[in-house]
Amino acid sequence: MSLATPYLLFLGDVPDALSAKVAQGIRDWRPELCVGQYRMPGCQADVGLRDLDIDSAIAAGARTLVVGAANRGGVINASWKQVFVEALEKGLDIASGLHELLSDDESLVALAQAKGRQLTDVRIPTEEYPIADGVARRGLRCLTVGTDCSVGKMYTTLAIERAMRARGLSASFRATGQTGILITGEGVPLDAVVADFMAGSIEHLTPPASTDDHWDLIEGQGSLFHASYSGVTLALIHGGAPDALVLCHEPTRTHMRGLPNYSLPSLSRLRDTAVDMARVVNPRAQAVGVAINTKALDAEAAKTLCERTEAELGLPTVDPFRDGADRLAEALQTLASEIA
Amino acid sequence: MSLATPYLLFLGDVPDALSAKVAQGIRDWRPELCVGQYRMPGCQADVGLRDLDIDSAIAAGARTLVVGAANRGGVINASWKQVFVEALEKGLDIASGLHELLSDDESLVALAQAKGRQLTDVRIPTEEYPIADGVARRGLRCLTVGTDCSVGKMYTTLAIERAMRARGLSASFRATGQTGILITGEGVPLDAVVADFMAGSIEHLTPPASTDDHWDLIEGQGSLFHASYSGVTLALIHGGAPDALVLCHEPTRTHMRGLPNYSLPSLSRLRDTAVDMARVVNPRAQAVGVAINTKALDAEAAKTLCERTEAELGLPTVDPFRDGADRLAEALQTLASEIA
Repeated sequence: MSLATPYLLFLGDVPDALSAKVAQGIRDWRPELCVGQYRMPGCQADVGLRDLDIDSAIAAGARTLVVGAANRGGVINASWKQVFVEALEKGLDIASGLHELLSDDESLVALAQAKGRQLTDVRIPTEEYPIADGVARRGLRCLTVGTDCSVGKMYTTLAIERAMRARGLSASFRATGQTGILITGEGVPLDAVVADFMAGSIEHLTPPASTDDHWDLIEGQGSLFHASYSGVTLALIHGGAPDALVLCHEPTRTHMRGLPNYSLPSLSRLRDTAVDMARVVNPRAQAVGVAINTKALDAEAAKTLCERTEAELGLPTVDPFRDGADRLAEALQTLASEIA
Repeated sequence: MSLATPYLLFLGDVPDALSAKVAQGIRDWRPELCVGQYRMPGCQADVGLRDLDIDSAIAAGARTLVVGAANRGGVINASWKQVFVEALEKGLDIASGLHELLSDDESLVALAQAKGRQLTDVRIPTEEYPIADGVARRGLRCLTVGTDCSVGKMYTTLAIERAMRARGLSASFRATGQTGILITGEGVPLDAVVADFMAGSIEHLTPPASTDDHWDLIEGQGSLFHASYSGVTLALIHGGAPDALVLCHEPTRTHMRGLPNYSLPSLSRLRDTAVDMARVVNPRAQAVGVAINTKALDAEAAKTLCERTEAELGLPTVDPFRDGADRLAEALQTLASEIA
């Protein structure tokens, strides 16, 4: 699945900044893909782009209206739909991660068809993936794995990409979830892929690189230790065949997300299990660093925790949000030179 | 998904016994569900049931025509379709595991609808499964796990069920693949379930038992060590929350099925990894026995291998086909009394 760029980010009439976090993510990580933002009367979010209407966005080169807002229930409001209709009529594609699918709205589908425009629901796969063949491929891959769901794997992976590019290294973020797909314009919505094709979809997402030193940075999903989603994570490990794993953690979580009776594994337990399973497919797989989401801690506590974790695991440990991810990029660069 | 019983087994005009192995499996494991077999001119298979036409099968109480044969490509032959039409017209449901779906044939769908009959393609899920909640539930569960795909997990699980019932124990085979579903009339086609719902589908398949000593015997799929399907296996381990694992192996396999560059893990490696992952959800999980498919060995070599494996792993080791599975049933009975 891939989206035509650049984007006009649709913020709708959301009541707060958090409801526009998808748009904020696109703005933060791919500003070069954004020509502006579209806000309706009453919108309380602002991602810091110029406000454009449909006509002026098209004049500025926009190709896709990306729904960067979420409302309660993930539905398509009647007021939003008016904007979508105008966008299609004037020549934009639309991409959405809303729970209510664009492709389930018959009038939008008919209009898109009549105008030759593309509606993309990033929640559902748009192509058939192969069964994984497990064949070794050129290039290097890094995967983020977590002690739990929603501990910052996407953010960490994007931050590593930025830091690697700043070092002049060749690296591509590979999206496996809907927000990541909207941010980068392509990827695999892994949680919606049929079981037999999960690992194959990730091989498809990370084809042989054109150079030996290119890194694919794969956005992790779920956790090997999360009863609901562990199978998705293992498919990602075996389909991604990573050379490097970055361990992600959120230190104030008292139980696994959505599972009140489950405690989180330690980072060393995560490292041992994830590396062990990764080596089934890639014998040189190793953990190269740790990313801790310290948002809930003050600066001093965050620093202490990172230092203690670094001493315990013997791996560079950062909060990518506070510290950036340059030390993780450096670890990957070092690993690449060892492998070469 | 569940099928109306009893069955008329459709063998079509297949050229050999192997092409009717699904029918043979139903005949072997659920003879009480079969009123007879339907064979077309030229059929070279015979599963040992009386030959019935549609009318006499209905008179004998048949409710579903089960396609127990497979032809090259898994398609619905024109000659087969004539029989399917007659079956629907006269009041039978039809169930099939063919690659070509009954539900993709518009004329069959229309006829079934007109006659109020059910077409079931066991390759695809017919219901929406929940996301797994990981909550502990009443009863006991056993799961077969393999060093590879296609090493005898279904057969072993069915043999354990038979042996447990012979001991007067309460046990239910729980099908997770198409042949198992056709054999028992219900189950989850796990390889076709969407990623996020895999573990939940297995929780759904194995609800809380009505007594503490009931065993759900869950058919395993794939292997934790198979790059293409490992995610399916881990979802099965976490959704099934097994108390007991039975390790399955085929000793002459030179590489993982379909993956020429991958060697099989040892049984002890399988045991350690599978038990470790199972304990994430069920802390009392343990390996209780080994099933080896010794079909390719002579009797003496088979006996030697089972004895050596038993000594190495300290677990009862049998070939369920040669020896039956009573020793595995005994191990489960012992475990149940230890837990109680």
